Amino acid sequence: MFQLPDDPRLALMLLSSIVEPGDAELDELLGEVGPVEVVGRIWEGDVPERLRRLTSAQVACTPDPADRADQIASATESCGARFLIPGDPAWPEQLRDLHLVCDADEPHLRPPRCLWIRGTGELAAICRRSVAVVGARAASEYGQHLADDLSADLTEAGWTVISGGALGIDRSAHLGAMARGGPTVAVLACGVDRPYPKANRSMFDLVLERGLILSEWPPGSATMRHRFLTRNRVIAALSAGTVVIEAGSRSGARNTARHAAELGRVLMFTPGPVTSSQSVGVHQLAREGWEARLVTRAEEVIEDLTGIGGPMAAPPPIPKRPFDRLNEVEARLVESLPRGYVVEEAQLAAAAGVPVETATETLRSLRKAGWVELMEGRWRLSRGGVA
Amino acid sequence: MFQLPDDPRLALMLLSSIVEPGDAELDELLGEVGPVEVVGRIWEGDVPERLRRLTSAQVACTPDPADRADQIASATESCGARFLIPGDPAWPEQLRDLHLVCDADEPHLRPPRCLWIRGTGELAAICRRSVAVVGARAASEYGQHLADDLSADLTEAGWTVISGGALGIDRSAHLGAMARGGPTVAVLACGVDRPYPKANRSMFDLVLERGLILSEWPPGSATMRHRFLTRNRVIAALSAGTVVIEAGSRSGARNTARHAAELGRVLMFTPGPVTSSQSVGVHQLAREGWEARLVTRAEEVIEDLTGIGGPMAAPPPIPKRPFDRLNEVEARLVESLPRGYVVEEAQLAAAAGVPVETATETLRSLRKAGWVELMEGRWRLSRGGVA
Repeated sequence: MFQLPDDPRLALMLLSSIVEPGDAELDELLGEVGPVEVVGRIWEGDVPERLRRLTSAQVACTPDPADRADQIASATESCGARFLIPGDPAWPEQLRDLHLVCDADEPHLRPPRCLWIRGTGELAAICRRSVAVVGARAASEYGQHLADDLSADLTEAGWTVISGGALGIDRSAHLGAMARGGPTVAVLACGVDRPYPKANRSMFDLVLERGLILSEWPPGSATMRHRFLTRNRVIAALSAGTVVIEAGSRSGARNTARHAAELGRVLMFTPGPVTSSQSVGVHQLAREGWEARLVTRAEEVIEDLTGIGGPMAAPPPIPKRPFDRLNEVEARLVESLPRGYVVEEAQLAAAAGVPVETATETLRSLRKAGWVELMEGRWRLSRGGVA
Repeated sequence: MFQLPDDPRLALMLLSSIVEPGDAELDELLGEVGPVEVVGRIWEGDVPERLRRLTSAQVACTPDPADRADQIASATESCGARFLIPGDPAWPEQLRDLHLVCDADEPHLRPPRCLWIRGTGELAAICRRSVAVVGARAASEYGQHLADDLSADLTEAGWTVISGGALGIDRSAHLGAMARGGPTVAVLACGVDRPYPKANRSMFDLVLERGLILSEWPPGSATMRHRFLTRNRVIAALSAGTVVIEAGSRSGARNTARHAAELGRVLMFTPGPVTSSQSVGVHQLAREGWEARLVTRAEEVIEDLTGIGGPMAAPPPIPKRPFDRLNEVEARLVESLPRGYVVEEAQLAAAAGVPVETATETLRSLRKAGWVELMEGRWRLSRGGVA
């Protein structure tokens, strides 16, 4: 009647083209009987009713499933893609974590069944120390600048930047990473042979040279709204943490953020002006109880990812002004000296609220340091002061 | 030999002029023997060595303590200030909370011993539903706009805005509050007769009309660096929460923020661009483990103030009763109160055509229901009052 694909990988390719990722019923069946047998049952109509209805149209117009699988395999080959399944050495084990969060309400959160990869490098290795940098497509100049900067510095520190290959923040994140010679990973919601959007074509070409693009959908697949949402869980699960740079109140980046938090990944955001509509979504994130961490630069992202504070993310150095080097008593005495006046020591001590003996001693050392001068037994501020 | 002030209040005034707030040893002594006796002992040199050395210069140049106290009292009177001590009806009880956080390392965190107040209204009443809005003096246009907007909206919602009377964020906070007809409270680090900085003189004049300025230091006292830091604890303790709008990495606003957090008040901040040096301090605050809440508008501030438990969590707002549910006498009294005016009880009774005794009783229940407020013994419509 029809021929089955003769290989589990081919069978999985075929299944990816007819059932969306995250179908709990299909995944269960796969676990029980394996992909070749599942294809057989689907083409025989020997599957639960819901799955039968879901696949019947595809079955009707695909008389030869083996041939269709071969077509996908050759499309995979001709765009230079590799096909990965769980258990392959390059498969990123952290995707398993999605098992922990998927439930009946959100079946699409189940781990991917397979991945198509194009580009340079080994996925599992590249993602071992990785962080997602995501955000709005309609990003402001501020947000794009920030994504670029942050990703560049993260890359320099040895972290791989993962994003979604979109315009706006994603684009800046990928470019920032590549500008520092780092690999980067673009997780797509369409086939790896036709990365979307076309406006990012040159960027994708660079990514293929220096990093990877990947997808759960076979070559030739088009983007669809629901596929972006499904894709987001992979971005969140691949990386140790997600930084949301800018997001409108309806941005898909918030969806990625939620996945990251639910997966126990570190969720971070960069703040922006409260007057900016592009930051509304990140500020909401900060208030929604996801324990999102505010970050302003790469050192802070790394601090939050590694849990190691201290030297790496010491607060930016504070320029010390000479006045700040004074101790409390010294500061009080200097401040109590009115500029241009000459004051008795006892009066000065009183004004500063310090004992006279202490004042005497301290004024002497302040004099040595050039802060104050003695004039006929009384004190005044040095005219030159200490700049 | 010398004359002592004949009144504990006078003695406290005098003590405020010779020992800075928060002196644990002095406060202990005050608790034991009371202010008049403490003055006596200080002038006799009969106090612990440290305290003796601290005060000796002042004692030496003040032969007549009673006279000096009288001078402070008349300076208080001539600038129209009131002098408050703990236990006075207008004393804000929440200042007691400072007892919980002061320790040997930070003795200056002890509650104030007394306060000088100038302006319009009763301190305790005005601060009952209050929020501190503070930030950098060197604020950006963004920050000032934000402080103005937020304070205006908080005022409109019935919250009193407290700040430090400084240029920049403080100034915008006070102005925003007053622009919506609200009272505002400026807590100073100098005498109330000479509010600092002078560049805010017109603003202070407005504050005196519509709200209060207050200080722990007697009239004539100058600002000093350490006084600002000491003052900050009062801002934090008076209010249910503190919003930091902008702060450089060295801003004193972060000091106020820390006090607020330590006091169990709600600590909030408004984010800004990570590229703005004026926002560096608030972003650090967000990362420092103080559980600072990100807020972007007044509704969120109020949500955090009323939603999160804490020693000062505001009571649920009084449900407004529609005007037509008032009985005849109640309705007459409310209608006879001109919006924006404060009226004597007898006058109001006359205007409403009801007996004074009836007015007294009815006004009391109208007050409980949130229709009217007492202001220094006179009545006015509640700010949120008639729907």
